[in-house]
Amino acid sequence: MKVILIIGDGISDRPTRVLNGKTPLQVAETPSIDAIARRGICGIVDPISPGIPPGSDTALLALLGYNPLQTYTGRGAFEALGGGLEVRESDVSFRGNFATVNDELTVVDRRAGRIMRGGEALAEALNGVKLEGFPEVNVIVKHTVEHRLALVLRGLNLSRMVSDSDPHQENLPIQTVHPLDASSEASRTACIVNAVSKRFHEILTNHSINAARRENGLLPANAVLLRGAGTLPQVKPIIEKYGVQALVVAAGPMYRGICRSVGFDVIDVPGATGTVGTDTVAKAKAAVENLPGYDYVLIHVKGGDNASHDGDAEQKVRMVEKIDALVKHILDNVDVESVFIAFTADHTTSLELRKHVGDPVPLAIMGPGVRADSVEKYSEIDCAQGGLGRIRGVDLTPILMDLAGNSKKFGA
Amino acid sequence: MKVILIIGDGISDRPTRVLNGKTPLQVAETPSIDAIARRGICGIVDPISPGIPPGSDTALLALLGYNPLQTYTGRGAFEALGGGLEVRESDVSFRGNFATVNDELTVVDRRAGRIMRGGEALAEALNGVKLEGFPEVNVIVKHTVEHRLALVLRGLNLSRMVSDSDPHQENLPIQTVHPLDASSEASRTACIVNAVSKRFHEILTNHSINAARRENGLLPANAVLLRGAGTLPQVKPIIEKYGVQALVVAAGPMYRGICRSVGFDVIDVPGATGTVGTDTVAKAKAAVENLPGYDYVLIHVKGGDNASHDGDAEQKVRMVEKIDALVKHILDNVDVESVFIAFTADHTTSLELRKHVGDPVPLAIMGPGVRADSVEKYSEIDCAQGGLGRIRGVDLTPILMDLAGNSKKFGA
Repeated sequence: MKVILIIGDGISDRPTRVLNGKTPLQVAETPSIDAIARRGICGIVDPISPGIPPGSDTALLALLGYNPLQTYTGRGAFEALGGGLEVRESDVSFRGNFATVNDELTVVDRRAGRIMRGGEALAEALNGVKLEGFPEVNVIVKHTVEHRLALVLRGLNLSRMVSDSDPHQENLPIQTVHPLDASSEASRTACIVNAVSKRFHEILTNHSINAARRENGLLPANAVLLRGAGTLPQVKPIIEKYGVQALVVAAGPMYRGICRSVGFDVIDVPGATGTVGTDTVAKAKAAVENLPGYDYVLIHVKGGDNASHDGDAEQKVRMVEKIDALVKHILDNVDVESVFIAFTADHTTSLELRKHVGDPVPLAIMGPGVRADSVEKYSEIDCAQGGLGRIRGVDLTPILMDLAGNSKKFGA
Repeated sequence: MKVILIIGDGISDRPTRVLNGKTPLQVAETPSIDAIARRGICGIVDPISPGIPPGSDTALLALLGYNPLQTYTGRGAFEALGGGLEVRESDVSFRGNFATVNDELTVVDRRAGRIMRGGEALAEALNGVKLEGFPEVNVIVKHTVEHRLALVLRGLNLSRMVSDSDPHQENLPIQTVHPLDASSEASRTACIVNAVSKRFHEILTNHSINAARRENGLLPANAVLLRGAGTLPQVKPIIEKYGVQALVVAAGPMYRGICRSVGFDVIDVPGATGTVGTDTVAKAKAAVENLPGYDYVLIHVKGGDNASHDGDAEQKVRMVEKIDALVKHILDNVDVESVFIAFTADHTTSLELRKHVGDPVPLAIMGPGVRADSVEKYSEIDCAQGGLGRIRGVDLTPILMDLAGNSKKFGA
């Protein structure tokens, strides 16, 4: 049997005054998501463990069955993979921003005026550059979206244990990268990243696109700020763990990268943007269309988290309702007698605090043979009364795989 | 935001015949503790893990966020710290009793007739003695309360892996201490402790206080029984983990010692005794008065456990009601819009069995943004229906720190 897992990024919340002491999930009209709760079994999930606010990367790894406490090796490789780069085991990868610095290398704008065009050509100018002192290191650069890029360093004896060159706020200089452990690999990699910063700045300063930007009164994209050094996690791909063909429908590069790193296929869906403007029904359609070729389909929808970080309660409620339309399309178009449908969030994002918090997320699972409980509505409060009780994120995929008949007995 | 955690030692119980099949928490009138349950979120907590009866030391370590399975290194250091001694990383500490032995060194009374006076002077006579064969070992002794003392051995190559000299019952000889592992440090420490026993017996036998006791027909305090060899736990202090200033209001030396060992400040409260006679409202007042200078305040109240060990149901119910008065003072005197208030027990102590058992303890947490559930009363049975579900003791402090905004994200 097949499994469809739908993750509403950051849609879980705490009760908030602006919604009269309710959560967005309690306020939103979600007849289809509620149908999963009513027909299925519910519970609450600690993505990592109680009280620990998860990153988006560690939470998704956990929900896919990979314990991030054991497997997480930084975010960079996910961004690079998700941006379409090939990443090898010994590579160290980074997320990067095109930024604007002044003559003292102080960051004037961390996003180079949110540069929208030219990013691809600028990244191309950086791709493949040779570094003074490190001629054997391959420097691979790819533009992803807006002011963002991915960097892969390829060579021997590299380490992900290095700090960020990104100062994470403006009016501070590009940071000199330093090693985060005592290994010679970390020292060497720190030197290499500093050489990269210097070389990128030289190339970008002289690039014709920036000359044109300056002429037009735009901030030049004359530096790259690097962060999140990471390597590929050393994990057993999902096909080996469960014998399932897995597919992800997601727009955000990082989510695509994480899924690729554990063996999911990735498809592009026109209209899926990774923002509140995304076409959720288009994602549902893509999932339904591709279902025949796959055993495990993950649909990841980002917008609810964005609304939370903006503190926009109305937008968050609307986003939850857009996700309900996605669920409706799934329920209307798959054979619910042979497909398990699970719905959850990857983490709780507080509208009031505008950040990830450590509260558990609600979960509902429907499908043949599921031990349906008496929960009627999908929400943080209702699902806490459900038959699944309180579980860990890393247990979700094993439960789904077992329901679908893909688990292996432990013991004789 | 701030957190006040109130722990009623051993107040959790099993339903018992003497209370018509109810627990003391169900029988006691506790309008203020119930208010926390009604306004907040409830659950049940396994201090260690299901079915494991915790010691008072391991339970408290866990509730403060330190996994005792990884960090517990014996009780002795907590008693010494709590008794006001300085304890260093390489010290090995013990709890001790003044006792009465006969000429064959058989224990006649494990508490020297519950000696109430003279303990301080006797301890002073033992403090700083030199040991034959181990001149480099510093012997530090301090009287705590009644017949009890703390011993710190300071020197190189000491180990906590040694047995007790205390036979734990009367009519048995002082035990020859033996090493509990194959290390040379444990062998050496066992020899040192045996030399301590011998030397202490010599000094005490000839002490004038004991001559006077014999004359007055009292049992002489002519030996020290040692138990619970322990070292300081190697842990990150709570200020480093969460950036919080923490304070404990507790009377029992061990509880104070545990809190000191993880970085809590400790205050003395007149009237707080660590027994059923303690002034609970004085503890509440001290907590409220000191709240402005702290982020995390723990109030520990011991009496309920004592009543359980005595099998005294009426006393236990009365003690719970005294703790309710403490909670009332807190609720009446703090701004509940900016303080999280949590109430729990450290372990279940069975009135019928007069000992710690492995059942979970009830928990209630109130404060801004908490996902309030429908539990109306604080009890073992009611809280099991709450929105927190069933958690582990070690998860409590992370949950409280996350609610109060002191947690760190794991991942990016």
